[in-house]
Amino acid sequence: MAARPGGHNLAVMNGPKEKVLTLDTMNACVKRVEYAVRGPIGVKKPFTEVIRANIGDAHAMGQKPITFLRQVLALCVHPDLLNSPDFPEDAKRRAESILQACGGHSLGAYSNSSGIQPIREHVAQYIQRRDGGIPADPNNIFLSTGASDAIVTVLKLLVAGEGRCRTGVLIPIPQYPLYSAALAELNAVQVDYYLDEDRAWALDVAELRRALCQARGHCRPRALCIINPGNPTGQVQTRECIEAVIRFAFEEQLFLMADEVYQDNVYAEGSQFHSFKKVLMEMGPPYSTQQELASFHSISKGYMGECGLRGGYVEVVNMDPAVQQQMQKMMSVRLCPPLPGQAVLDMVVSPPEPSDPSFTQFQAEKQAVLADLAAKAKLTEKVFNAVPGIRCNPVQGAMYSFPRIELPPRAIQRAKELGLAPDMFFCLRLLEETGICVVPGSGFGQREGTYHFRMTILPAAEKLRPLLEKLSQFHAKFTREYS
Amino acid sequence: MAARPGGHNLAVMNGPKEKVLTLDTMNACVKRVEYAVRGPIGVKKPFTEVIRANIGDAHAMGQKPITFLRQVLALCVHPDLLNSPDFPEDAKRRAESILQACGGHSLGAYSNSSGIQPIREHVAQYIQRRDGGIPADPNNIFLSTGASDAIVTVLKLLVAGEGRCRTGVLIPIPQYPLYSAALAELNAVQVDYYLDEDRAWALDVAELRRALCQARGHCRPRALCIINPGNPTGQVQTRECIEAVIRFAFEEQLFLMADEVYQDNVYAEGSQFHSFKKVLMEMGPPYSTQQELASFHSISKGYMGECGLRGGYVEVVNMDPAVQQQMQKMMSVRLCPPLPGQAVLDMVVSPPEPSDPSFTQFQAEKQAVLADLAAKAKLTEKVFNAVPGIRCNPVQGAMYSFPRIELPPRAIQRAKELGLAPDMFFCLRLLEETGICVVPGSGFGQREGTYHFRMTILPAAEKLRPLLEKLSQFHAKFTREYS
Repeated sequence: MAARPGGHNLAVMNGPKEKVLTLDTMNACVKRVEYAVRGPIGVKKPFTEVIRANIGDAHAMGQKPITFLRQVLALCVHPDLLNSPDFPEDAKRRAESILQACGGHSLGAYSNSSGIQPIREHVAQYIQRRDGGIPADPNNIFLSTGASDAIVTVLKLLVAGEGRCRTGVLIPIPQYPLYSAALAELNAVQVDYYLDEDRAWALDVAELRRALCQARGHCRPRALCIINPGNPTGQVQTRECIEAVIRFAFEEQLFLMADEVYQDNVYAEGSQFHSFKKVLMEMGPPYSTQQELASFHSISKGYMGECGLRGGYVEVVNMDPAVQQQMQKMMSVRLCPPLPGQAVLDMVVSPPEPSDPSFTQFQAEKQAVLADLAAKAKLTEKVFNAVPGIRCNPVQGAMYSFPRIELPPRAIQRAKELGLAPDMFFCLRLLEETGICVVPGSGFGQREGTYHFRMTILPAAEKLRPLLEKLSQFHAKFTREYS
Repeated sequence: MAARPGGHNLAVMNGPKEKVLTLDTMNACVKRVEYAVRGPIGVKKPFTEVIRANIGDAHAMGQKPITFLRQVLALCVHPDLLNSPDFPEDAKRRAESILQACGGHSLGAYSNSSGIQPIREHVAQYIQRRDGGIPADPNNIFLSTGASDAIVTVLKLLVAGEGRCRTGVLIPIPQYPLYSAALAELNAVQVDYYLDEDRAWALDVAELRRALCQARGHCRPRALCIINPGNPTGQVQTRECIEAVIRFAFEEQLFLMADEVYQDNVYAEGSQFHSFKKVLMEMGPPYSTQQELASFHSISKGYMGECGLRGGYVEVVNMDPAVQQQMQKMMSVRLCPPLPGQAVLDMVVSPPEPSDPSFTQFQAEKQAVLADLAAKAKLTEKVFNAVPGIRCNPVQGAMYSFPRIELPPRAIQRAKELGLAPDMFFCLRLLEETGICVVPGSGFGQREGTYHFRMTILPAAEKLRPLLEKLSQFHAKFTREYS
């Protein structure tokens, strides 16, 4: 088993060799991926604390976990605790029933690739309740490693063709950059449709049509992604809008992908979450029987904010059964989604009932988080809109404001000299001078010549107001500096 | 925002339309993926219990979790328990230090995409201890969602080119089918090198060279994957063999991928785990300074078997820093690996010390699992080799036997009529008649005309012997039936 000595010596004597894997030789699609959200950090300057208002990471910003979720999860992790008097009976019952469905009664066993079967059934029941009784089939539900995982899986199925036949996927601008990143990686064509900032980031079918027609010249558009409530834009779509989008998708033969991970995060009066599934079904045939849809949900957002556990699901509707089998196969290669995330998803879709001992506390904690977020959404809008040069649409839902900022021409000039997007330049300076970390609008996409940033509404209430004010003051100072 | 009425009516009146996503229009690479391990199930027949000896799922087969791991994880999940007298002090200290490193002191926060920094440091210290003091750099360590996730990430970086310039990746045959599945999905070329069954599945550099030369005619081979200890083949590579493989990779400009997830699972006397990293470093320059290597580890195997938590890591060595940045970026798109898996990885790489209260129990539990597995490895080999028509190499390591079975020509004929691989036919009949679920060798690859199955050594000791005997009897009966 000795190496061929000649070749060996030759190689050694040739001195330093090229690496196999370099920027030049690596996957070009991966190289094209951009992902701005986890932004710039590592700056030391005149502030005591970096406030990471850049990502929707509720617990990191001080939000407490919901007690019931953690009690049950602890019991599942360490079943010796089932004998402890310190846990309510319903938490114990729940943990026992989850463990019952796990191999060897352990969260350490693999589950089915599509998730633990009773949890899929609970998800189906949740959807049915949410959608006013419209049935959901557990076999159409696939648990996932957060929503991102499921979104990428569905996009992966859709990618085909070369050159002018490459798959195009319509995504909103501004968008959550998972979409652009996944499309770049999969070598699909990103087709931008713009949300209408002047109408509170409304989605206009005429704009969808424009984007589609233009795209048909150079690719084959096959899917339409919607984020509702919007990330980073915070709008909540009306029922009428959703109907119009579904009609459009149906007419134009587009697979619909509805990113509905903020379905519990609706704050504005008069706004209400309507699921694409429900609207689709209520529209009746041929929509309800033919329009293909995948809807995504997650345990990372809502009132629970359990990002670190990586749990979520996708429900597919009217998917070709043979394709659905292929999706199942794809998921089996990665074995299974993490079981702690599956367990917490179970509680989210099937929370304590009024007769359960944990009900009161659970509801109180949930409502407190949501009420707090609603207040912070309102405060954010109010403070920003009082500032000259900043204009912020209502944060109807989700967890972010995406205010538009005016930047003076000299700042834009200076940014160009530095090779930075102007709003990136603004955000970097903001971070350096105040410790506030937000994400420039250019990371999400925006109309040419407009500038924004995304800031979460997650900082604790007592910190948020000073934060908003500091940011507003910085904008004024920045504007003066470059005027 | 009304839909264009003309188009709409037209579509409705045209009756049932084609689905957007069908087998014909979907991603052709995904369609080509095969993944056999999570095998056929759903058979009702004359047995009381299906024994799932098909996947390496220790807890599902009755192995108990290691107490310390679960105590600390429960404390992390539900920190109220830190006040409980029922947990040892070192478990509490550990949980506190893990939570300290989490955003908001919660497992519900996102971590850095490459994992919690102190855990990366502990992994580096673990590697350094394992490798006799050879240093490891935490910045070269990326935590992952099980090893599969990291393996796919590295493969993804390597994929480039079209036609005859497509990336080729050498993988062992038999292989763990994650490799073939990932390569199919990424549209890379799978280059098979055969392990030598007659020499206990040894890896022969001459065979590597044959495979490489042949592949160079139709693709550009850029990476070499090694699974050590072997899955499904159970061999443990000698140090000499590893040196020869490294020389070969260096000479031939191949990126090395070492799947070392069974590094704790070595049973045979005289066998010892040598990490590729250690051997590479000890070989000195130019190997130690130039040869690119990625080594993978997981919490799913070893003595802990925490599959459901999905934890693992990859260490990269001599990777181009610019490529490493790209890898970091790719990982950030998926946000972060699940935190419970990260936490348990921390304990695996940094277990209780002799002075800690949990040390004795931890060591006792760990040794009991490993001793039990070693006994079952030996038993499996012994029972199978006593049966005419079955030949089983020593299970030196990992968790599987991969015995070769003789199948009578009439059985092969019958399988062909049914459109099944002959060993698939055998395994299906075995499942139907005995409830024993194993995976046919054709799911892993094998030399043309040979037949095998993979069976885990995980069933409880008292079940394993009757299981092996039942299987052997079935083989005899099957042989008679088709002779």
